[in-house]
Amino acid sequence: MARTLPHPSPTAAAAPARLIARHRTTLDRALTAVRTREHWSPYPEDTRVYGPGGAADGEASLRALLGRPFELGQPGRDGTVGPAPERGGERSPYGFDLGISYAHHDPAVLLPALAAALPAWRDAGPEVRAAVCLEILDRINARSPEFAAAAEHTSGHNPVMALHAGAVHAQDRGLEAVAYAYAEQTRLPASAHWRKPQGPGRTVDIHKRFTAVPRGISLVVGNSVFPAWNGYPGLFASLATGNPVLVKPHPAAVLPLALTVRLAREVLAEAGFDPNLVCLAPEHPGEGLARRLATAPEVRLVDYSGRTAFADWLHEHARQARVFTALSAVNSLLVESTGDYRDMLANLAFSVSLYSGQLCTSPQNLLIPRGGIATDEGHKAYEEVVADLGTALDALLGDDGAACEVLGALLGPEVLARVDLAMSGALGPVGVPSRAVRHPAYPDAVVRTPVVVTLDAARDADRATLLAERLGPVCLAVAVDSAAAGVELVAETTKTCGALSVGLYSVSEEVTEAMTAACAEAGVMLSTNLMGDWYISQSAVYSDLHGTGMNPAGNAVYSDGAFVAERFRTVVVRRYGGAT
Amino acid sequence: MARTLPHPSPTAAAAPARLIARHRTTLDRALTAVRTREHWSPYPEDTRVYGPGGAADGEASLRALLGRPFELGQPGRDGTVGPAPERGGERSPYGFDLGISYAHHDPAVLLPALAAALPAWRDAGPEVRAAVCLEILDRINARSPEFAAAAEHTSGHNPVMALHAGAVHAQDRGLEAVAYAYAEQTRLPASAHWRKPQGPGRTVDIHKRFTAVPRGISLVVGNSVFPAWNGYPGLFASLATGNPVLVKPHPAAVLPLALTVRLAREVLAEAGFDPNLVCLAPEHPGEGLARRLATAPEVRLVDYSGRTAFADWLHEHARQARVFTALSAVNSLLVESTGDYRDMLANLAFSVSLYSGQLCTSPQNLLIPRGGIATDEGHKAYEEVVADLGTALDALLGDDGAACEVLGALLGPEVLARVDLAMSGALGPVGVPSRAVRHPAYPDAVVRTPVVVTLDAARDADRATLLAERLGPVCLAVAVDSAAAGVELVAETTKTCGALSVGLYSVSEEVTEAMTAACAEAGVMLSTNLMGDWYISQSAVYSDLHGTGMNPAGNAVYSDGAFVAERFRTVVVRRYGGAT
Repeated sequence: MARTLPHPSPTAAAAPARLIARHRTTLDRALTAVRTREHWSPYPEDTRVYGPGGAADGEASLRALLGRPFELGQPGRDGTVGPAPERGGERSPYGFDLGISYAHHDPAVLLPALAAALPAWRDAGPEVRAAVCLEILDRINARSPEFAAAAEHTSGHNPVMALHAGAVHAQDRGLEAVAYAYAEQTRLPASAHWRKPQGPGRTVDIHKRFTAVPRGISLVVGNSVFPAWNGYPGLFASLATGNPVLVKPHPAAVLPLALTVRLAREVLAEAGFDPNLVCLAPEHPGEGLARRLATAPEVRLVDYSGRTAFADWLHEHARQARVFTALSAVNSLLVESTGDYRDMLANLAFSVSLYSGQLCTSPQNLLIPRGGIATDEGHKAYEEVVADLGTALDALLGDDGAACEVLGALLGPEVLARVDLAMSGALGPVGVPSRAVRHPAYPDAVVRTPVVVTLDAARDADRATLLAERLGPVCLAVAVDSAAAGVELVAETTKTCGALSVGLYSVSEEVTEAMTAACAEAGVMLSTNLMGDWYISQSAVYSDLHGTGMNPAGNAVYSDGAFVAERFRTVVVRRYGGAT
Repeated sequence: MARTLPHPSPTAAAAPARLIARHRTTLDRALTAVRTREHWSPYPEDTRVYGPGGAADGEASLRALLGRPFELGQPGRDGTVGPAPERGGERSPYGFDLGISYAHHDPAVLLPALAAALPAWRDAGPEVRAAVCLEILDRINARSPEFAAAAEHTSGHNPVMALHAGAVHAQDRGLEAVAYAYAEQTRLPASAHWRKPQGPGRTVDIHKRFTAVPRGISLVVGNSVFPAWNGYPGLFASLATGNPVLVKPHPAAVLPLALTVRLAREVLAEAGFDPNLVCLAPEHPGEGLARRLATAPEVRLVDYSGRTAFADWLHEHARQARVFTALSAVNSLLVESTGDYRDMLANLAFSVSLYSGQLCTSPQNLLIPRGGIATDEGHKAYEEVVADLGTALDALLGDDGAACEVLGALLGPEVLARVDLAMSGALGPVGVPSRAVRHPAYPDAVVRTPVVVTLDAARDADRATLLAERLGPVCLAVAVDSAAAGVELVAETTKTCGALSVGLYSVSEEVTEAMTAACAEAGVMLSTNLMGDWYISQSAVYSDLHGTGMNPAGNAVYSDGAFVAERFRTVVVRRYGGAT
């Protein structure tokens, strides 16, 4: 059996009162930010803040983890996952095996251990829980370069995205969830005195106590693309509302969540809580562990990011739990007209190239009126726009080293297969071909520039092609009859396939209004005329909402009231206080 | 075809700006009350406030409705419900047919009419919607005696309860839901300006607009016991968040909701909105209309109060909708010790008698330690407590006229059958017999005092008897081994059968703590040592939460954030504002 971590009294530095004193200002600042929606973050985006070596420190930390067992000290160990890929070990998309092994645990031991940790955590109350969560996030933040390196070598992020989505922005999403959870739990006072006049000269007195009570065990099922960014909202929303959290990582991206769980357990133990409040459950290849855990009666919350098919399975079978999902999306962008053609093309080229189009917010379908568009450089035919996008892509990605900084690496062979399919012409004529890029440091990394396929929305076969998610560097340039037809196709795509982000380039008020109305009705965020270095795929934490819950791209919103409100319930105790 | 109401420009008095000016203070006051949980209500509990004739005015208004068609002017009329009971007409539990007929509507016409009303209502925004809802509630409030009379002669309420649960407290629950809906929709600003430093000397500007977007059509399926009190939370929460609301009343209690819908339509039309935002859908006997409506793709929200079996059906089949439920409950009360034996008995006697135990919060199981209890009048054996409760019931209900003021009338033959079964001794020995009461004004009303059956929790057959809901004047006095066993049985009953309200009489800190912990874990409100005229079955709007969502008595809470948060979603529009 695995040794279990000691469960000590809190250390002086991590005593709950100290943690509150240390983090209360940050919590209040986050509460203000989510109310005003202004730009703010306590987590710097510059690697150099985190150590003299910057990203190199992260690489060094990662190297120290490679080729060894990763220990968490959880109860119920009954096997080993990895290190060989065929036994569940991870392989870097940059072309080497991580060689890390993880303990596998018996759910029949693990789940009761999580449940046993609940009462003391529930009784600690919302403020202590928020402070402990912020300490965990601080501890994670201090090691951001290590988390970035882990993100690069599990999800294939480029270095900048790894620091952003793999570390600081994920921490932001975690803090945002903690702020929402805290706000929701403190809408009621802890206690109240209720006095009601009951007829002439008489009053009844009731003392009331309101206690936030967690739902039960919370299961977070991670993905391979953004395990931290998609995992932290559910993890921290559940933990902050009093629920123990079991993290089932994606087999291809265990490390980022293993590092997270380790730090969470460390902080919980130091603060005097049972570290088993947060546990990791890696799985053997083909085990189907998520299904078993999600349907366990003790599991009352499930956060899943990934494929629609498994989300449907969860909704069907995990009926004892509240299931939050963040799923596949087909994001559309309508190019109708622009006052800044060059800047628009540069922005588009970057948007479709960033992380090889593997973001859930990457634009896939570029809709362009068949008759062309009006620009500050005059009228541009559909074909010209596609060709000019190709030129912009060349400018951005012409140099292999620079290209890798934007593209990162392809997640796996299934993504490469999509590129190859598009390049074969099977989807439609290739407007801009993909190019194999050689990574200067990792010769085995699979890196490709985007392929742009030209389609026509008037053709049924092309409509079927564009109404399906093709995650990866595959961009569909779709000719549409008119701006109005484009707006309609955006709405249809959103309603049919789900979408997280819709874009529009237009100088027309009428087109903008039509698209705004269509997006309100279909339920998707709209971004208009983005230029410079702000892109449709980006989501500003504390300001933008990620997801709407209104279309098939999932029912979770990072973060709104609904994302936290059902993770706990309130129990009232009424004590008669006499009558006068 | 039915004529449709005109859809005029707003009248001067009901223009949205005027409505906001009229109701903003009340809305703000309600927002304060739900935050502080103090006693407050804008709706007086005294009938005389509502007219010189008090309750008599309500009776007169009701008489004017009897024996006639009730017109709403909705589209798609395709038949008539009632007036004969065998054709769906209502019969007063006080012993006469109401003789009212209602239009039946084709859902294929009605649902599109509701959907067509959505966009303008959505675009009106949260503040206008709240003001219109408050105007509707004011209009309802002004006719409280009429609503009370309707409640008496559909649900069989006694006159005081009819004014409370049938009118003013239902209005309070509606206002509470509007306040929660408004607060939730205004957590985000309507718009924000986001400025982010992007590297040295550069800043990106994004203008953002946040719009609350409703889910779709909301279906409220009413019950026969408290159609207004259980119906208004969902109706007003949905309407205030922008959703058109279709009300499917219980066949036995159409009138209270028909009156409600009529006033809502009147106010909506006066305010310049489509009255079809709120429609009524009475059904033919055996039609199963709720099933058809609940599974219509346009219906995205369902509020149901009633039986567990139909709630399970809804969760299974109405998968396109978010389903809120308020269901059967078995409420327990442990009598362990008391410092005021007489007052406790009087409070208990009233609690089990009020509305013949037909409230969802009525206590059913009185647990009493087999060895008796300590009181200010010395030790009392189990049998003595039961006998003394019988004496207290006699004192309360000895006079027929006074008894009717407390008991109201039995809802229907199924309730009488439960009394007869208990009186037969089939459940267990009868400790206090039920007595038939003759109503002084309505000789055909079926009125019964409570029967108290004595059970022993140590007997398996008795456990089965007490672990089932027996709505009506049937009280089970259950001998338990000890206070601890009583606490355990309360927890088991709550987890197995669902509960809305648990009571405890005890002077022991230890027992109180054990019961508090058990109720927190099982998820049910606890009331301790209630005396005087405040009872376990009462729920103070703006202060108490009705339901916890943690036990089988339903997933709806009147009102918490979760009750409103998912009735709308937020759509963001980001507009690039340049970079410097």
